[in-house]
Amino acid sequence: MIIIMEKFATEENIQSVINILQEHGFRAILHRGAVHTVIDALGDKTSLSPQRLEAMDGVSQVKLIREPFRLASRDRKSEDTVIEFENGVKIGGANRPVSIVGPCSVDEDYNGLLQVAVAAKELGCQFLRGGAFKPRTSPYDFDGLGEKGLQLLAKAKEETGLLIVTELMDSSDLDLVCNYADVIQIGARNMQNFKLLKSVGKCNKPVILKRGPASTIREFLLAAEHIMYNGNEKVILCERGLKSFDNDYTRNLLDISAIPVIKKYSHLPIIIDPSHGTGQRYLIEPMAKAGLVAGADGVMVEVHHNPPQALSDGKQSLTIPQFKEIFSRLNSLIDTLHLEKSSAPNIVE
Amino acid sequence: MIIIMEKFATEENIQSVINILQEHGFRAILHRGAVHTVIDALGDKTSLSPQRLEAMDGVSQVKLIREPFRLASRDRKSEDTVIEFENGVKIGGANRPVSIVGPCSVDEDYNGLLQVAVAAKELGCQFLRGGAFKPRTSPYDFDGLGEKGLQLLAKAKEETGLLIVTELMDSSDLDLVCNYADVIQIGARNMQNFKLLKSVGKCNKPVILKRGPASTIREFLLAAEHIMYNGNEKVILCERGLKSFDNDYTRNLLDISAIPVIKKYSHLPIIIDPSHGTGQRYLIEPMAKAGLVAGADGVMVEVHHNPPQALSDGKQSLTIPQFKEIFSRLNSLIDTLHLEKSSAPNIVE
Amino acid sequence: MIIIMEKFATEENIQSVINILQEHGFRAILHRGAVHTVIDALGDKTSLSPQRLEAMDGVSQVKLIREPFRLASRDRKSEDTVIEFENGVKIGGANRPVSIVGPCSVDEDYNGLLQVAVAAKELGCQFLRGGAFKPRTSPYDFDGLGEKGLQLLAKAKEETGLLIVTELMDSSDLDLVCNYADVIQIGARNMQNFKLLKSVGKCNKPVILKRGPASTIREFLLAAEHIMYNGNEKVILCERGLKSFDNDYTRNLLDISAIPVIKKYSHLPIIIDPSHGTGQRYLIEPMAKAGLVAGADGVMVEVHHNPPQALSDGKQSLTIPQFKEIFSRLNSLIDTLHLEKSSAPNIVE
Amino acid sequence: MIIIMEKFATEENIQSVINILQEHGFRAILHRGAVHTVIDALGDKTSLSPQRLEAMDGVSQVKLIREPFRLASRDRKSEDTVIEFENGVKIGGANRPVSIVGPCSVDEDYNGLLQVAVAAKELGCQFLRGGAFKPRTSPYDFDGLGEKGLQLLAKAKEETGLLIVTELMDSSDLDLVCNYADVIQIGARNMQNFKLLKSVGKCNKPVILKRGPASTIREFLLAAEHIMYNGNEKVILCERGLKSFDNDYTRNLLDISAIPVIKKYSHLPIIIDPSHGTGQRYLIEPMAKAGLVAGADGVMVEVHHNPPQALSDGKQSLTIPQFKEIFSRLNSLIDTLHLEKSSAPNIVE
Repeated sequence: MIIIMEKFATEENIQSVINILQEHGFRAILHRGAVHTVIDALGDKTSLSPQRLEAMDGVSQVKLIREPFRLASRDRKSEDTVIEFENGVKIGGANRPVSIVGPCSVDEDYNGLLQVAVAAKELGCQFLRGGAFKPRTSPYDFDGLGEKGLQLLAKAKEETGLLIVTELMDSSDLDLVCNYADVIQIGARNMQNFKLLKSVGKCNKPVILKRGPASTIREFLLAAEHIMYNGNEKVILCERGLKSFDNDYTRNLLDISAIPVIKKYSHLPIIIDPSHGTGQRYLIEPMAKAGLVAGADGVMVEVHHNPPQALSDGKQSLTIPQFKEIFSRLNSLIDTLHLEKSSAPNIVE
Repeated sequence: MIIIMEKFATEENIQSVINILQEHGFRAILHRGAVHTVIDALGDKTSLSPQRLEAMDGVSQVKLIREPFRLASRDRKSEDTVIEFENGVKIGGANRPVSIVGPCSVDEDYNGLLQVAVAAKELGCQFLRGGAFKPRTSPYDFDGLGEKGLQLLAKAKEETGLLIVTELMDSSDLDLVCNYADVIQIGARNMQNFKLLKSVGKCNKPVILKRGPASTIREFLLAAEHIMYNGNEKVILCERGLKSFDNDYTRNLLDISAIPVIKKYSHLPIIIDPSHGTGQRYLIEPMAKAGLVAGADGVMVEVHHNPPQALSDGKQSLTIPQFKEIFSRLNSLIDTLHLEKSSAPNIVE
Repeated sequence: MIIIMEKFATEENIQSVINILQEHGFRAILHRGAVHTVIDALGDKTSLSPQRLEAMDGVSQVKLIREPFRLASRDRKSEDTVIEFENGVKIGGANRPVSIVGPCSVDEDYNGLLQVAVAAKELGCQFLRGGAFKPRTSPYDFDGLGEKGLQLLAKAKEETGLLIVTELMDSSDLDLVCNYADVIQIGARNMQNFKLLKSVGKCNKPVILKRGPASTIREFLLAAEHIMYNGNEKVILCERGLKSFDNDYTRNLLDISAIPVIKKYSHLPIIIDPSHGTGQRYLIEPMAKAGLVAGADGVMVEVHHNPPQALSDGKQSLTIPQFKEIFSRLNSLIDTLHLEKSSAPNIVE
Repeated sequence: MIIIMEKFATEENIQSVINILQEHGFRAILHRGAVHTVIDALGDKTSLSPQRLEAMDGVSQVKLIREPFRLASRDRKSEDTVIEFENGVKIGGANRPVSIVGPCSVDEDYNGLLQVAVAAKELGCQFLRGGAFKPRTSPYDFDGLGEKGLQLLAKAKEETGLLIVTELMDSSDLDLVCNYADVIQIGARNMQNFKLLKSVGKCNKPVILKRGPASTIREFLLAAEHIMYNGNEKVILCERGLKSFDNDYTRNLLDISAIPVIKKYSHLPIIIDPSHGTGQRYLIEPMAKAGLVAGADGVMVEVHHNPPQALSDGKQSLTIPQFKEIFSRLNSLIDTLHLEKSSAPNIVE
């Protein structure tokens, strides 16, 4: 850390900062400039927060040199994290990008869900997604079938062999959801629900953590850190679009650059969700492609057998024929990228 | 609702929309323009969501005419909601704006907490705030004393008679927090933690609901609606600053205009938190004043007996002498505004 | 400046940075940390930009300690700038906050303009505003009467004695506008039109510089710096609302906190425009009050004798009766604040 | 347009709206709902702005059905606009995406510029870019060589045959810049400098219009409309990144989705600038690729023969060796995309 003192900081102010630094095991080096005095705090301690220093009299600013996340950081672990499932599917590193598809929420029509799952299997997708517990902005909207929805997903898994991704909204449902899910999803609005992060940190399932719609990348990686710090290192990040001043044509602003940025600073895999990320069916294909060429380890796309009947997010769901058409093109791109990835040395500048 | 069809919508598309509207009890009126066909859906039903209509073939846009919140809406209840406590303190309507003060988080030093509480009592404040459970962006930061913290707050209440405001982070702690709190606070990052909203909706305590840092006012009022829909109408809204592209001098961008906007569209009381809302001690006084003259029903301000020792948010906390100085000026303003408010007819626009 | 080197920076990289610093007259002090090497550059030179250092091999980040603006900075000039007009009106410092009112754009109806001006004069306002050259998002909208508009303003000035504020959009109109205006306004969308800033920097009239809708405060003060650097120190800043993700109820998000922040970092006067800043008539009064208690040196409000006939921005204009009602209340607040201001020592923390 | 009246609108209010609509040639159709009255205004007139209607008593909201831009709209012209240069280079439609490269600003070192130009030529790039007039946030930064810079660009053109792209900052320089430039660039901060848009609208050169950092896509297309409305239809749009709340790792947030959105709503070509769009050298390659697969008609990339010596934006410039390495990969992608584009039917959506 670098502590920049106020212009009018007293000798006493300066000494107090040095004292607290030394108490916490830092080496403090003092530089007196023409105007400002600056203190370098050398050391790698987590016990003294910059906020505490900033609150001291005479302190103008505290600048961090290191990233505040550790376990998620590429500094700690330079090779990519790869998450492997029982059936041999792998996410991350030089592996072929994965596809996670299915309806936003699971509804009563099992046949419809099965149609989606069968099409997904045929197209080489690895995961079936569907919400049984749904966060809803309005209390008047459908909020999911609960366990019934989980059972329908399990049935579709039995018939197709697809792995199941489903959202956990409350730590009290953890055991229930773990019984059915191969991957637990934490939704964007829960990205900083720290109790929930802690609870999935203590279970043993891979977790897809969606980026909050107004979260910085640093906050996103710190949320992953919460899960990892509690013992679960199998975190898959998911970029799904940010709040923006321009909502005329899209629901969110999908941040494609987050993918290469995160690849540089973290070893965790990252996937992209162009369905929520844009809210528009016609943008799914170009944005999925953009995410993949930028380095994403997978795509998550909403597919519904009958979007107008969908109880949530129909507007952004693909129909089964659209899904087939788009994924035949996406699969070619994924194949090409896989070839490049697996033959190239794993360089992150 | 007004449904605007695509330019190339077929007769079949149009008829499907009319059918679904009629099935859900709407009266559908068709207008064929030179370019677009438009359907007016007359009725006041919540059973058919605009999203479902938007997903239908041939539909271009669905425009809402009414606000999606009902219980929180001033259309339903034109007079201001007033929340009254056992000791006679009232929030909302023509009542004197209230003051809620205290440290961000409660730490081990009970004497410090008591000093703040005693000063608050002397300055006419009504509420003591302090976090026992703290949401923290990083897992390495202090996350609160838990029940121990609640007990210290209770002790300070006993000595001063101040009412207690404290945050609930997880529905599993509801009973515990209710045992100690007079008002339950839902933090900004949990504004759309719907399980938590539901749980406080089922208890009988007043709730301070903080606006999420990237939430629209509509989403904020819909979050209040979740609490009200579950049975608890005692909701106090709190504006605490938004994410912004400009973080050079402030941590958040405090949205003062949210106060008169919410007063127009909702009957719920709204308070303002200039401490989190700016993150800067020197901005607390001007922004508290700005919020009050814009119509806020109260202010929430961080005060700590020794900010540099605070385990969270010291930078934005007032010391006790600063608190006394600022509140002597704020109290004069509050008195003036109260005089105006209570003598004026209750007009909104 | 503080230069933080990459973890893997070579000795050669470090030496190159030291060399370039010394060439530009800085004293360079080297600190080798456990992980990073940090170089303090001591000196107060503007000849070496941080961007140039950041582009050097091995440099990770460059941190500025001083603000990049000089002339606009309170460090350079601690007392408030006061701008005085021939008729004795003053803006800034401990003077009574001023009122600038009038239609968004001047239209053909001179009688209407005169009615506004007469009412303004009676209410003690000092300035009449009105656009003769109008920036318009769409080429199909009315873009002003040009010189004809300026002549109508001049006529209204003759009859009422109000000072004239009007916008300059292109440096080629500078002489024309200067012939009529007492204050030249630079619109928000031209805040970074550097040619225009340069041209008003070379004239001798006071300038109202509006903050760009997505400009940081630092960029805003740097735009003022452009004007001052070219020779004109009579700059009045104007906060008029930011782009935001929430446009449901307001057109812009008025940043009240910009006022006390700018008061801390700059000596320039700052006024507030709640008409453009919110786009809603009912928000003008509360937001004008909020701005004034937060320390604004004046308010700029749109008033039109017949808003629905206005050729621009009718929605946010006050009618003359609304104007009279609101300004009778605003004037009381302004009187109170003036009393406080002029009797208090001029302290900026 | 659809005009939604307030709940308490009077018959007189309603009649006034109908009258004004009819005066302007609209057909007005009235629908009385249970709560609100709604008026459909049928017609395609530009003479009556929605703002004027919104200012009328009793009007709650006015909803637009059509886009406010006409000339730039795909509704008016369904096939892609293709801009062709004397040497046969074409931008837009099914043509091979183009490459525009060069330093941010032209400096005195002509040999350096030539090295970049020669490398660009060898790699098949079509355009050399370089600023002779530079907009600078701070008055203390280098603002370009002026005509000298234009002459150096002309010399490099002579030697390599590359077409020249350079920025125009003020309408008074139009003739000068036109003498040297093959394409005139309008910078992001001038996107709403309407005088400048008008002046390039009256010249005959193709224009690259950069999106303002806080402009909506609709505002962007309206800015293009200003140029087209003044007679110049050769507009090339350029996405270059938006202001965002997250500046930890990137300077701007590059909006890749703007490309397919604009392709849907407009026939104009659109290119992408990943250098300014991210501000980070390591992000240029993945973001250029993302833009291209999302449908961009070209990329604009900063290359400097010696980035640390660059007088502006060195941090985001590629060195010549980096440029060669990255463009060898980009060229393969461009070839593949061109093959797909030119063999596919021109489908939008």
